[in-house]
Amino acid sequence: MRDALVAAAFQLFLERGYEQTTVDDIVALAGVGRRSFFRYFPSKEDVVFPDHEGCLADMTAFLAASAPEHEPVLRVCDAARLVLRMYAENPTFSVQRYRLTKQVPGLRAYELSVVWRYERALAEYLRDRFAGRRDGTLRADVIAAAVVAAHNNALRSWLRSDGRADAGATVDHALRYVQDAFGTPATDAGGGVEVGVGTEVTSDGAPAALFGGPAEHPDDVVVLVSRRDAPLWRVVQEIETAFGRT
Amino acid sequence: MRDALVAAAFQLFLERGYEQTTVDDIVALAGVGRRSFFRYFPSKEDVVFPDHEGCLADMTAFLAASAPEHEPVLRVCDAARLVLRMYAENPTFSVQRYRLTKQVPGLRAYELSVVWRYERALAEYLRDRFAGRRDGTLRADVIAAAVVAAHNNALRSWLRSDGRADAGATVDHALRYVQDAFGTPATDAGGGVEVGVGTEVTSDGAPAALFGGPAEHPDDVVVLVSRRDAPLWRVVQEIETAFGRT
Repeated sequence: MRDALVAAAFQLFLERGYEQTTVDDIVALAGVGRRSFFRYFPSKEDVVFPDHEGCLADMTAFLAASAPEHEPVLRVCDAARLVLRMYAENPTFSVQRYRLTKQVPGLRAYELSVVWRYERALAEYLRDRFAGRRDGTLRADVIAAAVVAAHNNALRSWLRSDGRADAGATVDHALRYVQDAFGTPATDAGGGVEVGVGTEVTSDGAPAALFGGPAEHPDDVVVLVSRRDAPLWRVVQEIETAFGRT
Repeated sequence: MRDALVAAAFQLFLERGYEQTTVDDIVALAGVGRRSFFRYFPSKEDVVFPDHEGCLADMTAFLAASAPEHEPVLRVCDAARLVLRMYAENPTFSVQRYRLTKQVPGLRAYELSVVWRYERALAEYLRDRFAGRRDGTLRADVIAAAVVAAHNNALRSWLRSDGRADAGATVDHALRYVQDAFGTPATDAGGGVEVGVGTEVTSDGAPAALFGGPAEHPDDVVVLVSRRDAPLWRVVQEIETAFGRT
């Protein structure tokens, strides 16, 4: 019934245009009553995006099932992948809807509100994970927005390929950019690169510990940041500590 | 006339609530006709955000007036500051509106569409600046979203202080986080911090030049990235070169 309503709606949207199609037209074509329509969809907009409520629920459940050992940025990237997967499951429908949404301002507004809800779900999870940390809510909000923007950039490029590009590879590439920007370990099969230890500039220009204690793997990457005019002996001392050579 | 309409509208919104106030009520209190209202504001929502169109126009003009030597990320941060400045110019009005917007879903939807237009303006400028570069549109979209999220985080925290916090310092702090994430030089008045020189990991695990030749100022920051198992003498050698001590 629900699928039949969506199919009837899209047939009419494509034939006559979105604005020219009424709920009465849709139920007549699907052979059901108006009440059946409104049982599934609160409004005509909702039939255009029939899977977002379910996907939002899946995302919320996915994030709620997170463990403390999940790296938070990687976790929200995985949550965002659920959305792309929903689109990629039905390329023809997704591409048709993309064209429709571009033409109808009301649908774009609806889509903005959906995107906002995804972004809030990611931000809430990150705020929780970053609670008590310095700039926790700032970091949460910025990272959530960056993940959503990267996801949407990948999604649009996949939609513009008429659903023919590799959706998974496209979104992986886009999300990797965000992971790199926010200092998350890369997850490529090659492994071995991990920013786990480092130093930062203190007020007197000397280097100081940035990422906490020494990491455990000999092939970790050590990052040192120092003012150029810091005494060289202090820089070397910091490096020796970071490299675990003292 | 325009200001009188805004003042009358807010007086009524606060007294009766937004939904309970009609355009007729507003024009009656302001002592003008309906046509005058609609000459200034296309809808009741628009009177709640009377300055956004002007601010969007200012932002577009500001970005259009950019020179090639403007660092793109810093430039969009400066563009975002225009929005905060608009709010900060009238703290009482901004705080009242913030409370109103939180209560009325229709206004939140309107605000989302406004935020989206700011974000697109920033992204368009960045896409232009990054044209031809690898992942240019991806970087543009992600950085624009991050700047807007940081700005909005700062704006909300200023609004929650009832407009008493230092708006400029709050937004500077938030935008600095984005600048740091996307590798832009910091611009604080203290100066002297600039990521200009560094080393990276080569395939054999030894450090190698990352940011190009040595920077020119003695108080530059030097960044060194190295695998932990790199020979220490090679790390020190690289640092000496980067620090210009060889």
